[in-house]
This record gives sequence, C-alpha cells and structure tokens, in this order.
Amino acid sequence: MIAGIIGATGYAGAELLRLLANHPEVSGFSLSSHSFEGEQIEAVYPNFQGIISAPLRKPEEVIEKADIVFSALPHGLGEPFAKAAVEKGIHFIDFSPDFRFDDDEKTYSAWYGKTFAFPELRNCSVYGLVELNRDKILKLKSKGPVIIANPGCYPTGASLGVFPALTEKLFSGGTIIVDSATGISGGGREPQRSFHYPETADTVTPYKVGSHRHTPEITRNLMFMAQKSGITPPDVIFTPHLVPMNRGILSTIYIPVLPEWQVKQSYAKGSVFPPGDEIEEKVSAIREIYKEFYKNEPFVRVLPSGITASANKVRHSNYCDISVHLDCTGKTLIVISAIDNMVKGSAGQAVQCMNILMGFDEKTGLGAIPSLF
Amino acid sequence: MIAGIIGATGYAGAELLRLLANHPEVSGFSLSSHSFEGEQIEAVYPNFQGIISAPLRKPEEVIEKADIVFSALPHGLGEPFAKAAVEKGIHFIDFSPDFRFDDDEKTYSAWYGKTFAFPELRNCSVYGLVELNRDKILKLKSKGPVIIANPGCYPTGASLGVFPALTEKLFSGGTIIVDSATGISGGGREPQRSFHYPETADTVTPYKVGSHRHTPEITRNLMFMAQKSGITPPDVIFTPHLVPMNRGILSTIYIPVLPEWQVKQSYAKGSVFPPGDEIEEKVSAIREIYKEFYKNEPFVRVLPSGITASANKVRHSNYCDISVHLDCTGKTLIVISAIDNMVKGSAGQAVQCMNILMGFDEKTGLGAIPSLF
Amino acid sequence: MIAGIIGATGYAGAELLRLLANHPEVSGFSLSSHSFEGEQIEAVYPNFQGIISAPLRKPEEVIEKADIVFSALPHGLGEPFAKAAVEKGIHFIDFSPDFRFDDDEKTYSAWYGKTFAFPELRNCSVYGLVELNRDKILKLKSKGPVIIANPGCYPTGASLGVFPALTEKLFSGGTIIVDSATGISGGGREPQRSFHYPETADTVTPYKVGSHRHTPEITRNLMFMAQKSGITPPDVIFTPHLVPMNRGILSTIYIPVLPEWQVKQSYAKGSVFPPGDEIEEKVSAIREIYKEFYKNEPFVRVLPSGITASANKVRHSNYCDISVHLDCTGKTLIVISAIDNMVKGSAGQAVQCMNILMGFDEKTGLGAIPSLF
Amino acid sequence: MIAGIIGATGYAGAELLRLLANHPEVSGFSLSSHSFEGEQIEAVYPNFQGIISAPLRKPEEVIEKADIVFSALPHGLGEPFAKAAVEKGIHFIDFSPDFRFDDDEKTYSAWYGKTFAFPELRNCSVYGLVELNRDKILKLKSKGPVIIANPGCYPTGASLGVFPALTEKLFSGGTIIVDSATGISGGGREPQRSFHYPETADTVTPYKVGSHRHTPEITRNLMFMAQKSGITPPDVIFTPHLVPMNRGILSTIYIPVLPEWQVKQSYAKGSVFPPGDEIEEKVSAIREIYKEFYKNEPFVRVLPSGITASANKVRHSNYCDISVHLDCTGKTLIVISAIDNMVKGSAGQAVQCMNILMGFDEKTGLGAIPSLF
Repeated sequence: MIAGIIGATGYAGAELLRLLANHPEVSGFSLSSHSFEGEQIEAVYPNFQGIISAPLRKPEEVIEKADIVFSALPHGLGEPFAKAAVEKGIHFIDFSPDFRFDDDEKTYSAWYGKTFAFPELRNCSVYGLVELNRDKILKLKSKGPVIIANPGCYPTGASLGVFPALTEKLFSGGTIIVDSATGISGGGREPQRSFHYPETADTVTPYKVGSHRHTPEITRNLMFMAQKSGITPPDVIFTPHLVPMNRGILSTIYIPVLPEWQVKQSYAKGSVFPPGDEIEEKVSAIREIYKEFYKNEPFVRVLPSGITASANKVRHSNYCDISVHLDCTGKTLIVISAIDNMVKGSAGQAVQCMNILMGFDEKTGLGAIPSLF
Repeated sequence: MIAGIIGATGYAGAELLRLLANHPEVSGFSLSSHSFEGEQIEAVYPNFQGIISAPLRKPEEVIEKADIVFSALPHGLGEPFAKAAVEKGIHFIDFSPDFRFDDDEKTYSAWYGKTFAFPELRNCSVYGLVELNRDKILKLKSKGPVIIANPGCYPTGASLGVFPALTEKLFSGGTIIVDSATGISGGGREPQRSFHYPETADTVTPYKVGSHRHTPEITRNLMFMAQKSGITPPDVIFTPHLVPMNRGILSTIYIPVLPEWQVKQSYAKGSVFPPGDEIEEKVSAIREIYKEFYKNEPFVRVLPSGITASANKVRHSNYCDISVHLDCTGKTLIVISAIDNMVKGSAGQAVQCMNILMGFDEKTGLGAIPSLF
Repeated sequence: MIAGIIGATGYAGAELLRLLANHPEVSGFSLSSHSFEGEQIEAVYPNFQGIISAPLRKPEEVIEKADIVFSALPHGLGEPFAKAAVEKGIHFIDFSPDFRFDDDEKTYSAWYGKTFAFPELRNCSVYGLVELNRDKILKLKSKGPVIIANPGCYPTGASLGVFPALTEKLFSGGTIIVDSATGISGGGREPQRSFHYPETADTVTPYKVGSHRHTPEITRNLMFMAQKSGITPPDVIFTPHLVPMNRGILSTIYIPVLPEWQVKQSYAKGSVFPPGDEIEEKVSAIREIYKEFYKNEPFVRVLPSGITASANKVRHSNYCDISVHLDCTGKTLIVISAIDNMVKGSAGQAVQCMNILMGFDEKTGLGAIPSLF
Repeated sequence: MIAGIIGATGYAGAELLRLLANHPEVSGFSLSSHSFEGEQIEAVYPNFQGIISAPLRKPEEVIEKADIVFSALPHGLGEPFAKAAVEKGIHFIDFSPDFRFDDDEKTYSAWYGKTFAFPELRNCSVYGLVELNRDKILKLKSKGPVIIANPGCYPTGASLGVFPALTEKLFSGGTIIVDSATGISGGGREPQRSFHYPETADTVTPYKVGSHRHTPEITRNLMFMAQKSGITPPDVIFTPHLVPMNRGILSTIYIPVLPEWQVKQSYAKGSVFPPGDEIEEKVSAIREIYKEFYKNEPFVRVLPSGITASANKVRHSNYCDISVHLDCTGKTLIVISAIDNMVKGSAGQAVQCMNILMGFDEKTGLGAIPSLF
C-alpha cells in the first residue's frame, strides 16, 4: 500500500512518515511539500538518511499515486485535496481543524475566520477520536471513502480524561477546567520567537489564556459524550502552557463531582485537613469506573493507585495515560491525562484511524513502548 | 551587621547568602551546617570561590555571633534556636513552616505530624508575607525581637495572585483552584529520584495531587484576606507540578467571579465563541482593580494588556508578576502569577522582612533586575 | 526464546528490556534485580504498565530459565554468573568492563582495582564491538557458548569515528584527542549530586579530565585497528563532558593527518584563512575513504557533505553517525561521531551481538528510526 | 553619566542595559533599535517592566545625547557611528568584529567579506581584552576618545585559558585545540531553525567545524601573547558546539607541553595507566604558574585542586574560571575555561572597559555573584 502525505516536511508529517516507515502494510510513500518541493525528504530530515528516501512532489501527484492520503496542511488549504481523494475513491485523513466541527460552520468560522470550501464533504467526514467515534468511522467506511478529521492534540488528552466522568454521572454540572502543558514541538517546525530556545528553555509560559482555538473542540467533544449519558454538557475553560520539553501534553483537569463523592471536614473555615482513608476509598471507586470505561481500549491506560500520569511515561508511544485523584474534601475530581502530542495527539492517532479504515488490526505499527527518557 | 544563617548549605541558605553578600548593611556572616560542619562554604559552593569565604559552625555559635538570625532548617528543628535568638534579643527569620500557622497547632499537626515545641513563641511570631502583614510586622517589632515565619514558595505566588480578587469582591464564592508549576530547585539540594536529571528533564510531573502541604497555608492566607473584606473565605484546591526549569513558580489561578463580570454567549450549549471586545473591557477593569490594590507594593507588578506573566520575566529577582485574564464567557477570572521560587518565594522575601525589621529601606539589596535567560 | 536480564532495573537493563520486548524472536523474559527483588518490573518502570509484566527474581533463577543471559551489573560482580551461563551452555552478554580487556589483567586492575575472578573465562570471551570483531564473534561462537564484553558507551562512538583514519593511513602518528559530550542517562539510575537536575541542567560540566576509565578501552581498540594496518598505534587523550540532554554521545575527535592532506596558507604566522575549495576536495576524498570502510556496516552512517553529525539525528536508534571535516590548514582531521548512548552505546549493541550469536539477521529488533526530538 | 546603546534590543544590548541599570555611575540611557524604533524598551523586554523605561530612537540621537556609546550592531554597520562618537570626543565600545583585527584588513576581509570603512579609526582603536591590553587601553585613553573592540565570546574564554601556558613556556610548540560549547543565547535574538527549541534541546550540535570566524581572533590573541614571551605562536584549531543551555561558554583546551612535564608510563603501546602522584605534582606546579599569572586580575579565578571549571559556576557573573589538568602521560595540558557568554563574553567585559576608560574602579557594577542555577 502506498501512503501519501501532503505537507510531509512539517513536524506532524515527518512524524507520520517515521511511523509509517515501520508499518508492515505500507510498502511505499508519495510525499509533497510546499517549501521543499523537488528536494528529497532525507535532505530536509537528515535523521532519515539511509533509511527513508523519497522525493517531495506536488499534492496532486500524491493523490494520484497513493492508496490513502494524509494531509498535514494548515487549516483552510486542504479541502480541495480532500475532495480529489474522495472522488478518486480513497480515504483522506486531515490533520487540520477543517473537518473537526462536522457541519457546525458557525463555530468553525468564529474561531478560524474561514468558511467551508465544500460543505457537502461533511457527509463523508467524521471526527477521528477513535475512543469516541469508532462505530461512526466503521459505519461511514461501509459507505465509501471517508474523510477523517484527525483531532487536535490538546482535545485528545483532555477529552479522554473527562469522558468517563461524564458518562458515569460523576459530574455534578457546571464548569470543567482543563489546564494543560505542552511540549514545544506542538508549535511546529517554523522558527518563531515563542519557540526560540533562550526564551523557551528554563521557564513556563501560559499563552492564549481563555482564547485558545482548541476550547470549542474540547467543548464539543464533551457535549457529545454528555448527550450520550443524558446529562447537561459542561462549560469548558482551557489554559495551555508552553513548558521546556520536546514532546508531550499533560493535562490537569478539574471536574466538580456530585455530593455523594464529598467528604465532610469537621474543621473550621479557613483550614483544611489532609486527605484520609475515606478519600482514598472514593478515589479507588472512581478509578474502577474509569478502568471499566476504557477496558476495551488498546491505547488508554488508567494507572493504578500510587502512580500519577506524567509526560515521560508515554513518550514516543500512542498511549493516553490517566490517573484520578480527589481534592482533600472530595468536591473536585482531579484527572491527570498524558499523551505524546506527536503520536496519540497527532500522527499515531492518524495511523490508528488508517488501521480502522483499511481493516488492519488497530494496533498495527503502533507498538512503540514508552521510553522514560 | 553580622547576619547568621543556620543551615547555610541547603539551596535556600546558599541563595540567602548570595543575596546578603551584596547587601550594603551586612558586614559579615556567621554560618552553620549540619552536613558540612567544619568546612568552608566556598568548598561546598565553588561558585563562591574568591568572593565569599566563611567557616561552617554550629547553630549555637551562629546565634552567639549574629545580629539577626535566619534559619533554613527543615520543619521541627528550629524552635530551640528561635527561642535562643529571642532570649538574646535578636530577630529570627525561619524558612520552615513551624511558625506559619500562628497558634493553630491543630492544622500544623495534621499536615506536619508534629506539635509546637514552645507554643508561647507564637506571641512574638508573625507570618512574613509582607504584602499581607507589613503592619503586623512593624507593630510586633516595636515590642521586641520578632520571629518571622517566612512564607512557603507556592503560597507566596498563589496568595498574591488572589488577594485583590477577594478584597474587591470580584469573587463569587466557592472554590479557587491554584494550578502551579515549579522549578526543580524547589526540591532542595539532596539528590532524589524525583529530581534526577533523566527522569526530570523533558517532561512534566504533577505530584502530591490534592494533598500538598502548602494547601492549608494558601487556604489560611486567603481566609485572612477574605475576612478583611467581610466575605466568605474560599475553598482552595492546589495542584503542584514539577517542570524542567531550575527556578521559578508559575501559578494559574481560577477564580469564579460575580455575575456582573459575565458575558452572555448567544450560541447553543456545546459551543463557545472567542472572547470579544466586551471581555477585553472587563479584563481592563479587573486589571485596574489589581493595579490599585498593589500600587504601593515595590515588588508586585501587575502587567499591562498583552503581556502574560511567565517564569522567565522574574528570573533572579524579587518580583511577583501578575497578569489577569477572563475565560470566554467571563465566568472565571484566570490569574497568572509568577515568582522566582528562590528569591520572592524564599531568600529574597526573607531579606525583605529583614529590611523591615532592621529599619532599612525595604528594597535594599533586592535590586536584581530580572534576567530573561 | 527466553531472554534473561540480570540487573534489569538499571537504565541499561530497562532499555534492553524495552528493545527485546519488541524483538520478534524473544518470547519471554526472566529478570533479576538486587534492589527490587520480589517486585514487578512494571512497578519500578511505570512506563511499562500494561505492556511488559515480569517479576524480579534472583540472578541464579534468571540463568536457569533463560536461553541467553545479559548482565547489566556493575564491574566485579558478574563473573560467577558468566561462568554459570557458560557451564549451562548459553551465551552471556556482559555490560560491565570485566571482559573488555581480554587477558590484559594488568590494565584492567590498574583502572578498576580488581583482579579477574575466573581468568580462564577469557578463552571464550570477546570484545563485542561488532564493527571490529564480527569475525571473531562468529569464530568463537562456532566453538561453544560465548561471553560478549559489551563495549563502553564512549569507546563505541570514539572507536568507530577513528577506525577508517587508522586503516587507510590517513593518520600521521602521535596523539588522537577524543572530546566527548554525554547525555545524563549515562550516569545511571541512582540519584547523585552530579546528576541532580538543578546542578546538571543549563550548564556543561567536564569530569574526570585526563583520568576517565574509558581511556584505556579506547586506546586498546585503536591499537588493534592500527595493528591491522601495520601502523604505530596512537596515544589517546579522552575528555568527557556532561551536557543537559537525556541521551546521546557526541564525540569530536582530532586526528593529525599525513602531509599530503595539508594545505599551505600563504599568510603570516598569527593569522589564518577560511577553508577554501582545496580543503573541500580533500574532505570529500576522506569522506569516500570512510564510506568505503563502512559500506557493509548496517549501523554506521557516514554523512554526506553539508550535514554534521549531532546527537539528535541518532536518537533512540542503533546508528552511529559520522561526519568528517578538516581544519583550515588540513593538518588535522576532525571527525564528529554521534550515537545514542543507551542504544548503540549499550542495549542496542548488545542486541546486535545477540542477533549474531543466535543466528538472527543482525538488524532484527533494531529498526527504530531516529527521532529528531 | 548618560550611557548610549546603539542596537539595544538584541540580546547583547539588552544584557548591557541590565548591567548598566545597576551601575552607580550611570544616571540615564539613550537607546536605539533598528527593528523597534519608536517603541519603549520595556515593551520589547517585558522583564524590564516597571524598572527600566526608555524610548528606542535613532543611532544619531544616541550619539548626540550620550557620554559614552556602546554599539551592539552586527559587523559592517558601526564604523560611521564610531567615527561620529570620536569626532564628538566620546568613547565608543563596539561589540562587532570590525575593530578586532587592528589594521590587519586582509584577515578581516577574508573572514567577514568586507573592507574597512574608515581605516584611520584604527589609530584610536584597541582590542578590549583587558587582561591582554589594559596598558594599551590606558595609554590610548590618555590621547583622546578611544574605540574599544569588545572581544568575541569564544576568543575571550579561549585566550584567557591559554595565555599563562604561552608566557611561562609550558607550551612545546605546534597546534593548540580549542573545543568549545556555547549556550544558545550566543546565537542572538532572531529566531532560526538552529535555535528552534525542538531541534536545540536535548542534543549537542557542532557547527562551522574548522571554519568558525572566531578562529582568526583566537589565533591572533595567542600570537600577541606568544610574542611577549619570545616564543613561536601556536596554530589554533577551534570547534564550537551548541549545547542546550541558555548562557555560558565552556572551552576544553589541549596544549602540548614541553618534555619536562611528561611522565613515562612503563607499559606497552596500546595501553595506558591512570594518572598517579607524579601527574598530580606537575598539575599543582602548573596551577601555581596560572595563579601567579592572574594574581592581579579581578575577574579571573584559577580554581583549586579538585574543582573543575563549569558553566554554572560563573553564571550571570563577569568571572572567567580556569582549571588545569594533565592527561595521564603529561604530554598535554588540558585547560578548562568557563565564562558567561553574555557577561564576561560580551556585556560585562564591555562595562569593564567602560570603567577603565571613565576612570572608575574596574569592578564597578560587576559585582554579581555567580548563581549555581
């Protein structure tokens, strides 16, 4: 099978290439690059020297040659290629937000300042968060070529961290806060002041506080899951931070829970006690709910007691790690979720979708074991 | 003036020494170290070679020789030295939590597993967050030797970020969430797995989720400030994270605000719009409240529009930077506060207290300009 | 095939486990750990949760159960286990220096302060730098069970960088300088001041200058290669540096070359000109010599013109990258070699040896593509 | 005194401003910036908020208003401003290489591709490495306004590390190798791929191997010092590396020494012994030579036995640390020198020159104590 990648020289495209090069069902590549057209991929990424060699062509040639097409273009550029792929009868997996909002053009336009180029493509597109939409993907696939909206990196980790709380009615209603830290590769390959080593290393930098574009995407995912459970969808506050690491997203998520989870502290206002056995029991119960929810998911790990999710435990793998905690008083469920932003948050998730679309085992080519460092 | 430091070879003690060595009113040092007694400080800290030279003695000798004593011992060890200093008639500035809870031994014991050694010392002790207790410190000083409980690093940044929201009745009641990231120096000088480079670099690690000892200290500070304003004190949730930076604490603080700050979004549940002009106006109003609150504070900077607080903007300085933001719907005030954990969060704040106690200009010796890198 | 690992909870042991867990010929593990005996490996390395699960036993049990044994014990402890393995009739791959000096006990003792426990084991042991000793390994294997002395991390990168210069008689005689930078994982898993984050990050630290134990190992490797070419072996100076990276060794190697490679600069003493076309031509010729030398080696990449070896181009892979350069005057060949210290410098190289010993394709299980970040 | 800075918004300019803002003799600033003309410096560097406030003007205005002018422009742009300053009768301290080669236009042009704009300015210019040229600076100053060529960062650390070896005739002749590692701030403020966090963090990257522009500057400095001692100047090989740290330059310098320093190792070729007492004695003797050489230099520290120079021991200070070592056989002196590239390697050194030119104590404003982290 020939895999096509439009926009192969960005970080997401190159990571995808790295994964697909070890995928047993992929026999060759067809690549394009706007910036490096005519060059060889291994000249742009010297780490591929002697391993992967392929010329960088035009997008049209990629579609022509490929049996499945991935697009790692920025938003607003990929719809014509999606259309061409579908017309050729092959699947199209899009890393941009263009298809993430289904037919809700209003929200898409409010955040991205564009309209849909070909609204009718939404008939064959689906948001590719497998843990939310596996059935939808399978159903759509049975009808013909599918456009996958590969989820955003933050929404992936955040949504997976919240889902079981919504469906199991832990959630008391109100606002869910997602406080996330990302590795710098999330900013892409183009040099910018924000990602310039001396201003990025040895510090932590919040950005787009209260106004990041992944907010509506998280909100939307949580709404769908809440609707499944018949509960009122939460409001979402999302704050991203740049931290000096290459890869990874760590989200600390605050979910208000129903009174039955709470513990009365007998002490006066203005003080607080350390968590006791009662909290520990409630945490265990919540952990079981999470484990049950994800029992059939190959890439979600609900961590056992005593282990807190962190970015380095999923490094270079397609896992989403989740650990659950309660504040001292049990009012708020604190979920930590960790993914590798380049794998489960991007290229790995896309391969997972490809596997489903092509009828391969969902785990094929995604066996990388997390490397602590 | 001879400055005494008990526990001079830990990171906090050494940073204090570095600051005091350039303080114009300090003419000499008397230092102690449990681990390195008998050695020279510049052998333990080779960065001091040729600049600072002093032998490491016993704590008793420090008290004997010094005109003011700082103690950077762990909790539970310093009370006898505090007593000795007070009896000698000199001030004692304690970096441990032993005096931070005033006479609330119940909360202290619940979190630290110890009782007070000399409860009566609380008659001359005060929590040294200058921006909260400057008047108390001055008043107490007028009566004799003072014991300063130098605040914890996280509580310093967190409390300063919340105070104006409490006093000005922005706060709607309920729970305030403090999500913090710390530099690794906060863990001290003793090697541990948690601070071992290969497991600390290139990742983010939450720890003691829902159970960190600084939770009751933050809670208490906010209670005092709420009481001043006649409002109900908030509950506090606090989550610390280790991030790969040497210094700094960045706190992202979520404060629910009164309905008058909110913006109605006309769109359906499950969606959300980007922040518009209305939000920007409300943020400006809140920023003015914060600026007014801190207008006479030499070490708190409320940042102008367009600048978000980050750890590198306060590096090596005694400043606490604060930026204010609202989520898209205006329901939640998001405050970012940044300090250098070793300066404003520890040694610098102690010098600030010393300046007040000794009648020096509060800014003396604290003129280091933040270094972006 | 059951793979046994003695000392599985150190970094080298755990990395080996990570590699072997994806090796198609390995069906199970038998592991030991001195520090964590009785626990599960996935409790010690939570990144393995849900992927690798195995109890930590005693070394004797490992040998009993395994079809091949790796030992990641420190020097001086492994010989009895090597003996037991050989007696059982299985291969033993030792990560320690105990077998690296063949029968030169004098040099081994001078640097490691120990004598050989079972000198006769040297009859079936061989230094496992495949690119130097592939034939020796094959020959020894034909006689019975083999003990492989898995090479040191620095000697691997350094030796591979120098070999072609020796055999092709580029080398003019005299001293070769190896100036190396290592990632901190090279220091192992035990916390120490030298690897404590705040004293390791954001700095560069040379250590054991002129006295590192890998000096005699490099010297010895170069002697063997020089002898093959019938030239006088070089003296070696080796200086290691700790740099703030998790993995990787970058060696900058200075090799004086014969007069035919030199360029006359017409200008006066005290000045120097930039390199011109003549240097570029000579560098190309040297590069061809290097390429020819390694043309059949699957894990050595001699980089093309314009690409300089760096640690991130080999990250997580078994490659050794080499780039060649000349100083402005052509007197000195500057070779840059880069390896991942945990893979080609340790666990990967051991798997390469295992593949040879067991008759598998040498590249089996070592297909990880370098990840730029 | 009004200090003028042309090019105040680059890293060197901003660091200079940070130092001068705490200099007791500087009462105000006049700043220019090509990129940010018309803005305020504290908008470009938010770390200065509330501390330093000054508008960014044109270079001509800077010269008009200032009592001394610093220029942090790139090479080839500053000569007209140097001329204007001299004509106005004030000193000019230039961070570019334009005046570093005195009247050796041939070497300057070969490396920088430019000719001198005003060759006659070399009559009043001097290379500002104080430890080499303090007398020259004083002498020139007595004649009128002086142009200081502020030395390059690498040449500063490298030259100070070698000087005593040349003058005391330790040096045996031949080639001196300088292998250096720099913090990323050395690359300046403009974002580039080479300084983009994900490709710079967690790796080591050699660059411009055998062809860096600081090679002729180091060569020249060593020539002058060799001439003072009446010995033949060395050839110089210089290899720079980017390492993931914000600041600092660590140079490992290999200097062949005369036979009297050597130790005979009785063992066969191909082996080597650890350093013994004899080496230790010789190292001590060399250390004394170094100490004697620098005994009157306020900013050079020759470190005692057992302490190796490293970047973090000089962080944020104007010190150059030097430690001396011998290889096992005593043939080669290995000197480690460490500076903060932004201070002693740039802005601090410029202030040191200013102090001499203006008749202030040479240490004024340079009292920052190195911060280990």
